[in-house]
Amino acid sequence: MYKNILLASDFSPEAERAERRAAEVAQKYDAQLSLIHVVDYYPSMQLEGGLAMLPNIEERLNEKAQEDMDACIARLSMTFKNTHIGHGPPKGVIIDYANEIEADLIVLGSHGRHGLGLLLGSTATGVLHIARCDVLAVRVQE
Amino acid sequence: MYKNILLASDFSPEAERAERRAAEVAQKYDAQLSLIHVVDYYPSMQLEGGLAMLPNIEERLNEKAQEDMDACIARLSMTFKNTHIGHGPPKGVIIDYANEIEADLIVLGSHGRHGLGLLLGSTATGVLHIARCDVLAVRVQE
Repeated sequence: MYKNILLASDFSPEAERAERRAAEVAQKYDAQLSLIHVVDYYPSMQLEGGLAMLPNIEERLNEKAQEDMDACIARLSMTFKNTHIGHGPPKGVIIDYANEIEADLIVLGSHGRHGLGLLLGSTATGVLHIARCDVLAVRVQE
Repeated sequence: MYKNILLASDFSPEAERAERRAAEVAQKYDAQLSLIHVVDYYPSMQLEGGLAMLPNIEERLNEKAQEDMDACIARLSMTFKNTHIGHGPPKGVIIDYANEIEADLIVLGSHGRHGLGLLLGSTATGVLHIARCDVLAVRVQE
């Protein structure tokens, strides 16, 4: 029985299907639900003159992430046990957090392997490879 | 809401966790459950003198698959909407069948990426890549 479910969302419009699914499974199982969003921010962006063009980009990204997270929480009308904004390569950050909170199921969106979906698809695949727990990959629109 | 769940099992002892999980999710969702097992049989085995060593190997593999399927059905005490023994590369056979029966969720076991698990892991990964529906990868013992 799932007791401790972790939803990983990039807060894209496509990810809303995975978000709703995670909430639904948590309700079915009367499980606790946690939420992680990963700011996939590469400091190297600052090396290309980006600092001048986008001042305080890291701060801005974090503010945007927090706004998006608040919107997601409001949208789902769920009580979350934990919420976390992580930084770095999504696969590793998601897995580390899942281990930390001892999640027994990770729910995340999965694109096909074509086009734009390739990157997100590889996050789902990567999580699947190294997760210690079950993974529900929710098919989202390409 | 899941209505039509497909369990893919290789009937290994490790896969029993995925089998139980599929039955559990089907009950939670009051969904219909179908079962597929793939005989991953390469006719090329016959080209290496295997015919003499293992007469009727295809027939034997099919008989064994049917016995294992009967045992799985008895073990789970579930009524299955469809059961199917397929032949060929597991990934493609599972996906084709999922599409045929219009499954909305595929449940299958997933090993880590090390050792023996590599092959099974790649089935889960492959299914995840090309499935049109959601995929629940159940972590099984390495």
